[in-house]
Amino acid sequence: MSDILVKDLFSDQHYAEDQAITLHGWVKTIRSSKKIGFIELNDGSTIRNAQIVMKASDLDNYAEIAKFPISSTIAVTGKVVYTPDAKQPLEVHADAVVLEGASDSDYPLQKKAHTYEYLRTIAHLRPRTNTFYAVFRIRSLAAFATHQYLQAHGFNYLNTPIITGSDAEGAGEMFRVTTLDMNNLPHTEDGKVDNSQDFFRKETNLTVSGQLEAEAFALALRKVYTFGPTFRAENSHTARHASEFWMIEPEMAFEDLDDDIVTIEALIKAVVTYVLDNAKDELAFLNDNVDDHLIERLEKTRDEKFARLTYTEAIKELENADQDFEVPVYWGLDLEAEHERYLCEHIYNKPVFLTDYPKEIKAFYMRANDDGKTVAAVDLLVPEIGELVGGSQREERRDVLAEKIKDNHMSEEEYGWYQDLRKYGETVHSGFGIGFERLVMYVTGMKNIRDVIPYPRTPGNADF
Amino acid sequence: MSDILVKDLFSDQHYAEDQAITLHGWVKTIRSSKKIGFIELNDGSTIRNAQIVMKASDLDNYAEIAKFPISSTIAVTGKVVYTPDAKQPLEVHADAVVLEGASDSDYPLQKKAHTYEYLRTIAHLRPRTNTFYAVFRIRSLAAFATHQYLQAHGFNYLNTPIITGSDAEGAGEMFRVTTLDMNNLPHTEDGKVDNSQDFFRKETNLTVSGQLEAEAFALALRKVYTFGPTFRAENSHTARHASEFWMIEPEMAFEDLDDDIVTIEALIKAVVTYVLDNAKDELAFLNDNVDDHLIERLEKTRDEKFARLTYTEAIKELENADQDFEVPVYWGLDLEAEHERYLCEHIYNKPVFLTDYPKEIKAFYMRANDDGKTVAAVDLLVPEIGELVGGSQREERRDVLAEKIKDNHMSEEEYGWYQDLRKYGETVHSGFGIGFERLVMYVTGMKNIRDVIPYPRTPGNADF
Repeated sequence: MSDILVKDLFSDQHYAEDQAITLHGWVKTIRSSKKIGFIELNDGSTIRNAQIVMKASDLDNYAEIAKFPISSTIAVTGKVVYTPDAKQPLEVHADAVVLEGASDSDYPLQKKAHTYEYLRTIAHLRPRTNTFYAVFRIRSLAAFATHQYLQAHGFNYLNTPIITGSDAEGAGEMFRVTTLDMNNLPHTEDGKVDNSQDFFRKETNLTVSGQLEAEAFALALRKVYTFGPTFRAENSHTARHASEFWMIEPEMAFEDLDDDIVTIEALIKAVVTYVLDNAKDELAFLNDNVDDHLIERLEKTRDEKFARLTYTEAIKELENADQDFEVPVYWGLDLEAEHERYLCEHIYNKPVFLTDYPKEIKAFYMRANDDGKTVAAVDLLVPEIGELVGGSQREERRDVLAEKIKDNHMSEEEYGWYQDLRKYGETVHSGFGIGFERLVMYVTGMKNIRDVIPYPRTPGNADF
Repeated sequence: MSDILVKDLFSDQHYAEDQAITLHGWVKTIRSSKKIGFIELNDGSTIRNAQIVMKASDLDNYAEIAKFPISSTIAVTGKVVYTPDAKQPLEVHADAVVLEGASDSDYPLQKKAHTYEYLRTIAHLRPRTNTFYAVFRIRSLAAFATHQYLQAHGFNYLNTPIITGSDAEGAGEMFRVTTLDMNNLPHTEDGKVDNSQDFFRKETNLTVSGQLEAEAFALALRKVYTFGPTFRAENSHTARHASEFWMIEPEMAFEDLDDDIVTIEALIKAVVTYVLDNAKDELAFLNDNVDDHLIERLEKTRDEKFARLTYTEAIKELENADQDFEVPVYWGLDLEAEHERYLCEHIYNKPVFLTDYPKEIKAFYMRANDDGKTVAAVDLLVPEIGELVGGSQREERRDVLAEKIKDNHMSEEEYGWYQDLRKYGETVHSGFGIGFERLVMYVTGMKNIRDVIPYPRTPGNADF
């Protein structure tokens, strides 16, 4: 007798009809008549359940089993019976069913549909539903595919700091980190809070990006990437924004904007391909229950070359659009989701790279183009999501960067180390950032970022 | 003519003697006489440098090249000449050397030894040294090996929240996260800070562990692991403690303490094996320059079974030790590094598992043993480091857990969701936590945690 997983049952492994096996798992459903009963058993190793067949004549405790509450933990010993002509390819005929942990009968996930809103309030239990099992399994596969692709292509994983003394790119509101006693704050002579008495002897915040710190490492290890949490203290309540989310930020020395775009496309395709290959059951479930174009969209993403045009060309396309936008289109506009989605959903029907954005709407570190108006930036827009990736060639020219820092009224002192990276050998380099949760939304078909994060943090919500 | 990497030069690939190649990289050293010169070129793709040979007769700008400052960015076009009898297996004979970015001559990493303390002040440049190149390359490999092993063994990667409303296991001081204006705090009627006006409508902190949240997912996806940053706001200045560090926290349903120990040993061995196989150049450098027992210790770790004894047996060993300890030994003592290191360095000379610790010195969630005195805990102690891993079988018994929560004066409300995990089907489960930086110290031979973190955070230090 050997302990096996439900996953093993559905693998190529064949179990002989007289081989006793033991499964441990949780009761998903149970139904029984006087003589025969059925348990759908899930053991977490796969989204699929094992069908347990129980005969009253075989089991001393048959009457008791029939009353096991949903979600109880049980051990089943029995034999595998293959049923190639039935809906389920196999059953387990039970010789013994032992209760290991009885669930209370008020278990919230009885077999009925629940709203996503309700399920968010039981984030500790929702991974037990098929939908969230699929989402979080795919999230894990997408993360691993990212590591696997980048490691195989010479990138070094880098952990940039979470607590930071600087404001990175001025990219939005930050969370303050402190150990000062809020009910008894120390003050300086001029009546302000004395940050020199804080843990780090100065004001510190949660990072919004590890890019600048990653650039330093790209100029030593050639190719690096971060994959860690970032934060925005914005009072934003959309389905695409969370206060805490994970970013993937590759940086590459000796690569320009064209190289950057090649890597973005290859990485996205690698992740999509890995999920298509390794999450067939989960994607089938999500395609049936969440988004019936999911698999088609992912296969298209895998198989077709992404479109590419400049921001200026995109503005022309949008000006000629056969629909009205809430926000009118003009050259210089920071595109809204409605514009981005129009381009990739209506015009191209696939992922679209936009390049060479007006410098005014992009960050200081992006490389100035020769036209004096645009920068060597790239965004990748994808159907259903909008912006998935943002990147650029970085400004490697010491004098140009210094001027930009001055023009943006940024602290010379704070960005001194960043300018050192140009002072000690100007090097062409590029990078990009992927919002990991948006990537997970793209590969699962989920429409709300709160439903692809195990325990989401949004304004007013930090439960669990 | 094709762009290649220095790494490619040292690979199995053979370059014909008339094949022109181009390399981009940084000048590590340069020396020249009137007729011939040599550049050690590093391009970040490997710790190894390419030896560039320049003849004055071949290069128009020879006189200029000889004056390139260290760390300048250059492009070299030339041909590969194999020199199997020389110290270097090959050279590149230059046909052209182009300056792409001149370094300032005050580049701090001139060819001389620097202290680790000094290098910490230039954390943005230190990865350009051989030592830190090796450390951060190995850090990346160790992280990937962790993901690869766990994914191949059915674990799902899980991102537990960084910002938390709870104190996890009461494991030490926490950092407060807030968006309140510290110079203008809102107050409640009784004069306290009004946390209901903070971003999350309550007090929030940076996580010290994702374990409890991971347990919830293990009871759905069977095997999960976190790998993310955790925080301790402790005013600790040792070489083994940082304020921000990364933890790997696997959790497994249907596994007991013995299973836990099997997985810990297999994972550590997998990481060590991967580093031995994939970082030969880096380990050779560290073995020569940092710790001359490094490779021997790692091979032993890979090849020999770890020792295992109970805490009670370990106390006996320590009481019989042939040395005095600063902190005297008695049953019930929370072992110090000196005791841990004595066990694994002097008695066993290899990694040692200690199990079944007194309940008073371990966390509330560890499963009570039948003796009434100990819990099903395990620590892995390793030479040079001390505690590397801490784990336990978790208390799955609803009534026992409830009593522990009460005894520890913990909030019933805050831990209600955690108790739900037992209420809806008690399930045997186990898990452990690895301090990732300690693992990196172990596989690199570095002795200070500040030297294995790209930009370390310690009390008073949050630069970059």
